[in-house]
Amino acid sequence: MDETAKKKLLRMIPDALYVLTSQADGKTTASTITWLSQVSFKPPLIMAGVKKGTHTYEVVGNAKAFVINYLGEGQKDLAQKFFKHLEPEDDRLGGEPFKPSPVLGFPVFPGMAGFLECRVTDIIDRGDHAVVIAEVVEAELGPVPGPLLLSSTGWQYGG
Amino acid sequence: MDETAKKKLLRMIPDALYVLTSQADGKTTASTITWLSQVSFKPPLIMAGVKKGTHTYEVVGNAKAFVINYLGEGQKDLAQKFFKHLEPEDDRLGGEPFKPSPVLGFPVFPGMAGFLECRVTDIIDRGDHAVVIAEVVEAELGPVPGPLLLSSTGWQYGG
Repeated sequence: MDETAKKKLLRMIPDALYVLTSQADGKTTASTITWLSQVSFKPPLIMAGVKKGTHTYEVVGNAKAFVINYLGEGQKDLAQKFFKHLEPEDDRLGGEPFKPSPVLGFPVFPGMAGFLECRVTDIIDRGDHAVVIAEVVEAELGPVPGPLLLSSTGWQYGG
Repeated sequence: MDETAKKKLLRMIPDALYVLTSQADGKTTASTITWLSQVSFKPPLIMAGVKKGTHTYEVVGNAKAFVINYLGEGQKDLAQKFFKHLEPEDDRLGGEPFKPSPVLGFPVFPGMAGFLECRVTDIIDRGDHAVVIAEVVEAELGPVPGPLLLSSTGWQYGG
């Protein structure tokens, strides 16, 4: 295999940054993810790549649901906050205020570009990230334009 | 559900355009797709959304392998050619010359931005598109820069 070509081509796939939130068994998770795609119109399904062995993977697996919070165009600092696990403090996560989402009651951030509430239909554990397929059950737009494109941050996640 | 918010947020997910090719049982397929994401580093896995009930879906299901040809930045016309099914004529598809890929022997287009050869590991038939997960087994860069971003074409596929 031409490893250089593989890396360059995988990094050519456009990505954005989102904060995935979920809750189960008294545990809350909020973490920045990049691998996300729509995978069906009817029903409206998306898939998210969730790193295995993480707190987020455990909570999503138990909750069988999650919220995708869309970071806004300028919100690179916010994306960076959720690279590591943070415990909620009152109504804040990493200093960022959140409220419960309308259907699932999971954290959503009113200052971001919007969110999708999703119920998990399938988890495929083939690689180092699980492919988590989920149906969109509610959506709300936020006050700032999105998305935060990975290409705008100088970061890379792929290859 | 807020259908307008759902549509806007799903269309915010960045996408590019690729020509998926495959062959099985004497049948060849080449079709433009947009829903693609990396889903694992080790092993290197990608997922592609493949519309069910199509010639491409049938051929990929039988071949258990496919090639992702990356369209170059300016190749919108080429993307459009492969919206419909085309039969190969000698060494051309829709007038575009192709050659066999090194591992699988499926059509690759030397004038595009490169390709990934992939072997299917899982097909999840939940929605109107199948989630096809596959391991990258070979990669080669082409002569033009990619990708062809969906946002650059004026087209939309999502929502």
